[in-house]
Amino acid sequence: MNQQSLSLRFDEEQMEILDQQLLPFTEAWVHVESPDHMVMIIKDLKVRGAPLIGVAAGLSLGQWAWKAKPSVEDFRAQAERLRESRPTAVNLMMAMDRLLKTFNETENYEFVWKEAMALYDEDQKLTEMMSQKGAELIEDGDSILTHCNTGGLATVGQGTALGVIRAAHEQGKKIHVYVDETRPLLQGGRLTTWELNQLSIPQTLICDNMAGALMAQGKIQKAFVGADRIALNGDFANKIGTYSVAVLCQYHKIPFYGVAPVTTVDFECETGRDIPVEQRKDSEVRGVFGSFGDVTWAPDVNVENPAFDVTPSDLVTGLVIDNNYFDQASLKEGVIAKLQK
Amino acid sequence: MNQQSLSLRFDEEQMEILDQQLLPFTEAWVHVESPDHMVMIIKDLKVRGAPLIGVAAGLSLGQWAWKAKPSVEDFRAQAERLRESRPTAVNLMMAMDRLLKTFNETENYEFVWKEAMALYDEDQKLTEMMSQKGAELIEDGDSILTHCNTGGLATVGQGTALGVIRAAHEQGKKIHVYVDETRPLLQGGRLTTWELNQLSIPQTLICDNMAGALMAQGKIQKAFVGADRIALNGDFANKIGTYSVAVLCQYHKIPFYGVAPVTTVDFECETGRDIPVEQRKDSEVRGVFGSFGDVTWAPDVNVENPAFDVTPSDLVTGLVIDNNYFDQASLKEGVIAKLQK
Repeated sequence: MNQQSLSLRFDEEQMEILDQQLLPFTEAWVHVESPDHMVMIIKDLKVRGAPLIGVAAGLSLGQWAWKAKPSVEDFRAQAERLRESRPTAVNLMMAMDRLLKTFNETENYEFVWKEAMALYDEDQKLTEMMSQKGAELIEDGDSILTHCNTGGLATVGQGTALGVIRAAHEQGKKIHVYVDETRPLLQGGRLTTWELNQLSIPQTLICDNMAGALMAQGKIQKAFVGADRIALNGDFANKIGTYSVAVLCQYHKIPFYGVAPVTTVDFECETGRDIPVEQRKDSEVRGVFGSFGDVTWAPDVNVENPAFDVTPSDLVTGLVIDNNYFDQASLKEGVIAKLQK
Repeated sequence: MNQQSLSLRFDEEQMEILDQQLLPFTEAWVHVESPDHMVMIIKDLKVRGAPLIGVAAGLSLGQWAWKAKPSVEDFRAQAERLRESRPTAVNLMMAMDRLLKTFNETENYEFVWKEAMALYDEDQKLTEMMSQKGAELIEDGDSILTHCNTGGLATVGQGTALGVIRAAHEQGKKIHVYVDETRPLLQGGRLTTWELNQLSIPQTLICDNMAGALMAQGKIQKAFVGADRIALNGDFANKIGTYSVAVLCQYHKIPFYGVAPVTTVDFECETGRDIPVEQRKDSEVRGVFGSFGDVTWAPDVNVENPAFDVTPSDLVTGLVIDNNYFDQASLKEGVIAKLQK
């Protein structure tokens, strides 16, 4: 197929997704049969990462619309079902909005498909741009903490926070990455470790609760994380555990950076308090499951399982958004609102 | 058997240990065949918790010496093998020292056995005393975060931090416990949940990286943890992740308490920097294993796996040691040194 990233590939006729649930031990590609199949793929977390979800959903909707020429009602209903497959991912909302707008303006599904492909191209260029911008913040010899997976498995390009790390490595800077395993779904332990291995970047895997002790020992110089949704004041939602990393960084005077495309900004959200947080299943906390196996170690007790937490801009050294770097002071002055087109 | 706690039982002829590796789904008692068998039981983490390890090792040595009447050389060599089974546990060192001292003074194994039983009685009385003292710090309506397992599975009495929580509950205070699952070995998810269920204390299980977000939401009023080794200045080593809880508590202005018997104090350690930290196996971080199953989700990458971290007294609101409560100011004034007999 003529378009290929680490986690998604397509041409005019077909589209395939790398099944991230099977990593790191098996690499299997799933042929996407229909947009409803994509809804299942998103819900099953076979595809994950806010930017990647948006592009993958857009491509599946655009390709289907172009090939199947559905009625306007069917097209809109399909966009709605995709939109509801992952309510916290603002990139998904924006991708659907853009394809609907293109259709409303052109009434031509070929333009919808081209708009979907534009989403793909833009994500690639954006992550390249962010990575180069963010890599300026990394110095030779840095050890960097990261949380969750924010690389070529989370975007169609080279990634957000992990893209920054990759760019610094490719610039020849000697760096080391500490990878939070990221309970409960283990995106760090399963995916980031796999991706860093692919890129030959030196790494150490840790449990989430070890990062603080490593900081106290002076082993971590910087932290880079992604963002699932950014509010106008610079507060942002990201994978559960991000907030604790931010607090630990502040205590140890370690710079803490978020990296995300402007599509992650929710211009309707004034502050982090307006960001809804999805609660996921108890079984994820009572054990682990995946292609590697399925075990439960905890009795059937009450569980909290928020998918995200919100980090206030007070704890953020700066955000890399597209090709901009905004420090805390400029975030507080409301610079993000000016990004709205 | 006429002596029975939640996790250990014995009489003049025999001794059994609850196999904590099989909890929470199976309750099985292991007959202790010999002190060398106890070495294996300790290394396999079937028995765990610093105070319990000390008493269990002491009883196995004392009962064997009394029954088998070994040569002086064999007795000392056996004490040494027990001592080396878990190098970070200062209670184990002290238990061995006491039995050796008793033998040196009396040259009579019956007194050694009586001294071992005294260790058991003292632990029961001590944990009762600590629990009552610590429970004064808990108010009706508190939600309390705890880490690891520090209850009747970690001591022969009702526990340290979890003993305090139990005493507050038994006083009729309405409390709720947030249980850190405590990666990598999941003592919270497997053991504390089981124990709180046995005691009918309301609880919510969380992943370690969720505690910060709950604090930010105002859901946690206090944190209580145990201690594996306390230095003279009030710094203390405890299960990995404790330090991060302490930093998060300070940021959110939540009182953070440690609870431990005086036998946990290492009078040779001036500060936490003198406490050695054991590194455990990579496989524990790359997956989970136990009677519940055995899975590996991470590729074979470099891992850090410190068993403990050290929390400086700067982050400690206060320590409950035996029937004393010491606030941070008194810890810094060196009050712990005065506990030496």
